[in-house]
Amino acid sequence: MAITNENAGSKGTALIVGGGPGISASCARLFAKEGMIVAVAARKPDKTVLKTLEEDFGIARYQCDASSDQSVEQLFGKVVSDHGTPNLVVHNIDGRVPDIFRKEITEADPDLALQTIRNGAYSAFLVARQATKHMLSGELDDKGSRGTIIFTNASAGIKGYPKSGAFAMACHAKTGLAQSLARELMPKGIHVAQVPIDAAVGWRQEDGTRAHRRMGTDENDNLADSDQIAEMYLHLHRQHRSTWAFEVALRPWVENW
Amino acid sequence: MAITNENAGSKGTALIVGGGPGISASCARLFAKEGMIVAVAARKPDKTVLKTLEEDFGIARYQCDASSDQSVEQLFGKVVSDHGTPNLVVHNIDGRVPDIFRKEITEADPDLALQTIRNGAYSAFLVARQATKHMLSGELDDKGSRGTIIFTNASAGIKGYPKSGAFAMACHAKTGLAQSLARELMPKGIHVAQVPIDAAVGWRQEDGTRAHRRMGTDENDNLADSDQIAEMYLHLHRQHRSTWAFEVALRPWVENW
Amino acid sequence: MAITNENAGSKGTALIVGGGPGISASCARLFAKEGMIVAVAARKPDKTVLKTLEEDFGIARYQCDASSDQSVEQLFGKVVSDHGTPNLVVHNIDGRVPDIFRKEITEADPDLALQTIRNGAYSAFLVARQATKHMLSGELDDKGSRGTIIFTNASAGIKGYPKSGAFAMACHAKTGLAQSLARELMPKGIHVAQVPIDAAVGWRQEDGTRAHRRMGTDENDNLADSDQIAEMYLHLHRQHRSTWAFEVALRPWVENW
Amino acid sequence: MAITNENAGSKGTALIVGGGPGISASCARLFAKEGMIVAVAARKPDKTVLKTLEEDFGIARYQCDASSDQSVEQLFGKVVSDHGTPNLVVHNIDGRVPDIFRKEITEADPDLALQTIRNGAYSAFLVARQATKHMLSGELDDKGSRGTIIFTNASAGIKGYPKSGAFAMACHAKTGLAQSLARELMPKGIHVAQVPIDAAVGWRQEDGTRAHRRMGTDENDNLADSDQIAEMYLHLHRQHRSTWAFEVALRPWVENW
Repeated sequence: MAITNENAGSKGTALIVGGGPGISASCARLFAKEGMIVAVAARKPDKTVLKTLEEDFGIARYQCDASSDQSVEQLFGKVVSDHGTPNLVVHNIDGRVPDIFRKEITEADPDLALQTIRNGAYSAFLVARQATKHMLSGELDDKGSRGTIIFTNASAGIKGYPKSGAFAMACHAKTGLAQSLARELMPKGIHVAQVPIDAAVGWRQEDGTRAHRRMGTDENDNLADSDQIAEMYLHLHRQHRSTWAFEVALRPWVENW
Repeated sequence: MAITNENAGSKGTALIVGGGPGISASCARLFAKEGMIVAVAARKPDKTVLKTLEEDFGIARYQCDASSDQSVEQLFGKVVSDHGTPNLVVHNIDGRVPDIFRKEITEADPDLALQTIRNGAYSAFLVARQATKHMLSGELDDKGSRGTIIFTNASAGIKGYPKSGAFAMACHAKTGLAQSLARELMPKGIHVAQVPIDAAVGWRQEDGTRAHRRMGTDENDNLADSDQIAEMYLHLHRQHRSTWAFEVALRPWVENW
Repeated sequence: MAITNENAGSKGTALIVGGGPGISASCARLFAKEGMIVAVAARKPDKTVLKTLEEDFGIARYQCDASSDQSVEQLFGKVVSDHGTPNLVVHNIDGRVPDIFRKEITEADPDLALQTIRNGAYSAFLVARQATKHMLSGELDDKGSRGTIIFTNASAGIKGYPKSGAFAMACHAKTGLAQSLARELMPKGIHVAQVPIDAAVGWRQEDGTRAHRRMGTDENDNLADSDQIAEMYLHLHRQHRSTWAFEVALRPWVENW
Repeated sequence: MAITNENAGSKGTALIVGGGPGISASCARLFAKEGMIVAVAARKPDKTVLKTLEEDFGIARYQCDASSDQSVEQLFGKVVSDHGTPNLVVHNIDGRVPDIFRKEITEADPDLALQTIRNGAYSAFLVARQATKHMLSGELDDKGSRGTIIFTNASAGIKGYPKSGAFAMACHAKTGLAQSLARELMPKGIHVAQVPIDAAVGWRQEDGTRAHRRMGTDENDNLADSDQIAEMYLHLHRQHRSTWAFEVALRPWVENW
């Protein structure tokens, strides 16, 4: 699995936790094109989108249950052993559980609510904890940084919407974690950022048409394009520590907010 | 246990989840004085502070592990059976676990982090869920309300501080839940509010001196007085639905914020 | 003009700047009923609503252009001379100019934009400045306070809506002022608060029917009742300094936010 | 004055309002290097920093009092006539008046307070109004945008600090304006953004040493580097409309927030 792309190494190693075809895939492609070694961790690392990324861009695939402390610790151990300490870690797990999403509180199953929090927020805690442990033992780069940790979030991380109490809990918990870590780790040289996406995410499929997960429209701009989101992640990673951004919410021009 | 105070009934029933000597005890005393039937649920309902409340104010004591769905469901079943559906429910559980509080992320134990979230935030989900189920089946009162659900929160529910990632997660999760429920339940006639206390809480002991939990000072105003906090809870409960407040942060005059 | 109500004096003096039939009139009535001397300042103090308040509740009426430094200074001079230093000052001027409100930026007249800011926000600066000057020379009351300054605000003070750039500027400016003064003056014993009303305000007319300014509905709860708003102002004024609230947004139960 | 740099034109025209040696100069240099025609408007366009930018980068200099409607209208007329409609407009005027900054409310001169608001916020209204008028008559570029309007702001635009009530008003007013315009203009194809800088700004002088305005330290990273800030402005301008950022706060790694 530990395949590296050709011109990698000098630009560091990126680890993307979450293996979907949207933001994760866009980040993997962009970071690889920019010369970084790229590893992607997913619950199911054998799905087609990841295999294609391996074939086309030399992405390394890893299995991980990000809501398990042991699994996350093992993931970082393998990635560090294979590619060195990652200096860019992206936590891109949404965590929502379909059977509870958009349910009223009286209809929301408590076990699924807890699972939502474990998937979406607790996994961010575990990933950030391992990332910090390894980054703190590393060197400062030429921008004065020991590394970058980016959390993807939803608008539910900023505003709690009705009929999604459990998802609001998970997303807000992630916001609280990101803020706490930004204040704790920035003075230690680790750039912590969160990017709330205030829209459904869309992406290009192999045939050029646009895929999306949850919306009825297509071929227009009411979805947040995952390739564009990846561009912001790269920009954040490259910021000089004199001017670090913590939070950048992204939304389509036609979004009502 | 199902003891009622004398002039209770016409003013409804209050259920306070969390049995500490600060906000919970102040609320219990004030609500009882105002003529409400008051029930307090605590992990350890036999502690002195609660027994004294029972003796002095007729408070009913209940055992409950608020992070357990089954335990919370049973609690509401008993309270409703004993005193009718509560029309004021206060979730006043802090949830912090001493062995992880103020620890850096690299030193924070993952199991304790999850426990912090379960104690502080998941319990709020469980309590609000049962409260909603029962309140929705009730009547509108003369202020157009089916009931009030109030969450005590900490300033960590608004701002994530360093060295307390897990606590920031729990408190922010509670904020997200409260916002989601406010938007979901207010149009159904349930007033949802959260009160972040931006300070340590102080209270009067039996001998009139001021007790506190975590700060080195005493006899001055840099602690939020729990009796004063209870006054705001009562005011929120009595608001007409034409002008409901969702969030009221309280802090001492000398607090730096 | 300097008429005082009968049981006033021991409860202090309230000065309400802005003389409309909604919040200002409700505050005047409530504060007078609670035993305070009440003065109301308005651009046109001879309008019927204020004359009626004078007749029914002994409210003292004053003329003032609150956007003029000189006029505000004279107002406070007269009020202090007539009734002593006010320990509760309410700034209740909306400031919106009809000919610019709800206009797109390209259609918004710059002079009216500046007028909106002067009316709504600069007047708050002038009023707060004089209030502070006088309060700081006064005594601490039994709640440890030298006085309370409350700013009414609109939801535009928290969120900038389209087609109302000038109003968003004025309301946000007021929020910035209120925050700055809260942090500056609370440690000196002056309670500063702002109350954003997230709805149109409704009030009862003499015949008991409900009046309103801008909405097409009536006889229901989608307006914020001005009498209820006044209750919150009184509660804020009476808070002990150990637990001061800075911001309390009020909205009807059916409001979308 | 209407000198253009060599490879300009295809990348559009940028107009920077405010002519200081920090963010404005950094933006002018960066935008010119990227192939844009760059115009800078200042109250005193003959100062050395701007003449040097003209000589080195072909920047066009314009005189403008940005707090005067007439002057701003004339500025846009000239710039459009000389270089075409600008598709990137930066409002970079701080507006603070030294004689009132850091003064307590009781010591703050009301005339200077109003001047602070006129300089910092009303000028933003005037500039945005003219920018919108011209941009709306233009074409969509290949990113689906009619143009970008960026407001520099201070942390006082997000949080009101003590002893700076007038500055808090001006900065918050700018935030309110920016939010209102973002919601009004984004659906029309104009990207509106604000960038609060949560620190003093530092910049490189001609001899390579770092200059700054207000802080006692030097040669380290506790100032926000103006060249880095300009990079974010360029990134914002280049965002695809599917993923526009509205607000990006920038702060040094060691900043306490």
